[in-house]
Amino acid sequence: MSGGATYCDWIAVDWGTTRLRAWAMRRNQVVAEARSDNGMNSLGKSEFEGVLLDLIEPWLGVGLTPVVACGMVGARQGWTEAPYRAVPCSPLAGSGVDVDTKDTRIAVTVLPGLKQNGPADVMRGEETQMGGFLFENPGFDGVLCLPGTHTKWAEISACEVVSFRSFMTGEMFDLMSNASVLRHSVGAGWDDDAFAEAVSETLSRPESVAAKLFAIRADTLLNDISKATAAARLSGLLIGAELAATRPYWLGREIAVLGAKALSEHYIAALKLQGVTAHYAEADAMTRAGLYSVHQTLSEAAE
Amino acid sequence: MSGGATYCDWIAVDWGTTRLRAWAMRRNQVVAEARSDNGMNSLGKSEFEGVLLDLIEPWLGVGLTPVVACGMVGARQGWTEAPYRAVPCSPLAGSGVDVDTKDTRIAVTVLPGLKQNGPADVMRGEETQMGGFLFENPGFDGVLCLPGTHTKWAEISACEVVSFRSFMTGEMFDLMSNASVLRHSVGAGWDDDAFAEAVSETLSRPESVAAKLFAIRADTLLNDISKATAAARLSGLLIGAELAATRPYWLGREIAVLGAKALSEHYIAALKLQGVTAHYAEADAMTRAGLYSVHQTLSEAAE
Repeated sequence: MSGGATYCDWIAVDWGTTRLRAWAMRRNQVVAEARSDNGMNSLGKSEFEGVLLDLIEPWLGVGLTPVVACGMVGARQGWTEAPYRAVPCSPLAGSGVDVDTKDTRIAVTVLPGLKQNGPADVMRGEETQMGGFLFENPGFDGVLCLPGTHTKWAEISACEVVSFRSFMTGEMFDLMSNASVLRHSVGAGWDDDAFAEAVSETLSRPESVAAKLFAIRADTLLNDISKATAAARLSGLLIGAELAATRPYWLGREIAVLGAKALSEHYIAALKLQGVTAHYAEADAMTRAGLYSVHQTLSEAAE
Repeated sequence: MSGGATYCDWIAVDWGTTRLRAWAMRRNQVVAEARSDNGMNSLGKSEFEGVLLDLIEPWLGVGLTPVVACGMVGARQGWTEAPYRAVPCSPLAGSGVDVDTKDTRIAVTVLPGLKQNGPADVMRGEETQMGGFLFENPGFDGVLCLPGTHTKWAEISACEVVSFRSFMTGEMFDLMSNASVLRHSVGAGWDDDAFAEAVSETLSRPESVAAKLFAIRADTLLNDISKATAAARLSGLLIGAELAATRPYWLGREIAVLGAKALSEHYIAALKLQGVTAHYAEADAMTRAGLYSVHQTLSEAAE
């Protein structure tokens, strides 16, 4: 591959539902970064190429620059569909679907997501983070937790995703704190004790969660609890419900949490309350590592 | 009281967060009905009187017309605050807070809501339905379920509300089916079997609910389930979670469901699956009966 005269060897792209991020890369090192709010949701099929070029044009040289992209860009409604691969399988196949671009300076590959037939589940983007984590921690055997809008839990064994489950915890927290009656109660800030108490209550009596959500509003009206306490309590109830459902995943297992720092810390704290120590890896770094591992494989195959 | 020459004896008003309903009444009979979208949420304190008069003006005669109102109109942000009464207590006190109106043709009384100190909980409006139900069923001893945006469960004994709990089930269903990723999966229609299955799964394993919400989306993508099935399944999971939390309320008790017909039928069906037979009473009729019982008491006191 070229790379001497040009700005970068290749470009890593994480193209999700609501945002697009791109990194100019030299091998596994970031040279430059760019982002926009042009998520998959906001684009028609014909718009993807232009939106990407607007972002990465400054990085392109005279030669062909490989672009490796993951996320909802590969969905049916995305740029080019990269059909789901079925678990159990390795999170990354070392290949993807080539996109037919008009601009001949880029060679774009879109990575497929994963699906599970029973219980039905899907992911797009998280498989790349998992692949990145396994690329950097090749012997890992245990459970990966990827907190986010739709948190994923995956069981990893012998370099494969054996099974996974998705949770709407992040989206529920956003909707409940911004659009439900709890919007009057929940605000900025945090309360470690309120979070710990809510997680613990929920794990010991998971059937009680539904009764405790509206009580956050009532506690504001009757007991004037702070917005920070309400936020931590809501988060604790929802993460507690997720941990109650995933107990077979995390109980007695090696765990790594891959995500944004602040949210990951809540998960790690909640697990610690159950006596479980989880490792942490930053989500974007794992995404780039996953994309790099595929880029490497593609480059070797081309040589 | 007057009533011969005038259009009605008194006016019943149910003034909630998002809507206002009024009934022109002769004793306990409806003479006319009017409604508007001027809920408490959309009004400043000075606007309530004008909005009410716009609706009920045609019904006013030469004498003084009593107006009895329940709901969020009595909240701190409402027309005139009617402070919560603490349970245990009868759902209706037979009195309320008199509103200072400019128009001398009406005498407006706003009914207070109920509060519970531990666990913290509040209601405004539902106490009037409960009072109406007890007015019509004076010997009732058991549990009342009032499905809605924020479903209430109340334990009734010796004509008093002993305890109650609120559930955000209705609001969560609306948010998840209209604003979350499930909006692509959930639509009109219904599927009795999917509902029954979801309720039953949730009641037998309440800790598993969080894992099954996103699966509705995955089931659409992978198995092409219908929007009606998705709607019934989402409803079944959420109502199932509520029934899991309220089991101590409904197990082995006499139960009446007070609510809108379609939603109440789902609750009655879910309870029936657990071997519990629930009675049904229509919500608006119960509201009017409760308001009528207070109107009667106020009239007798005035004579």
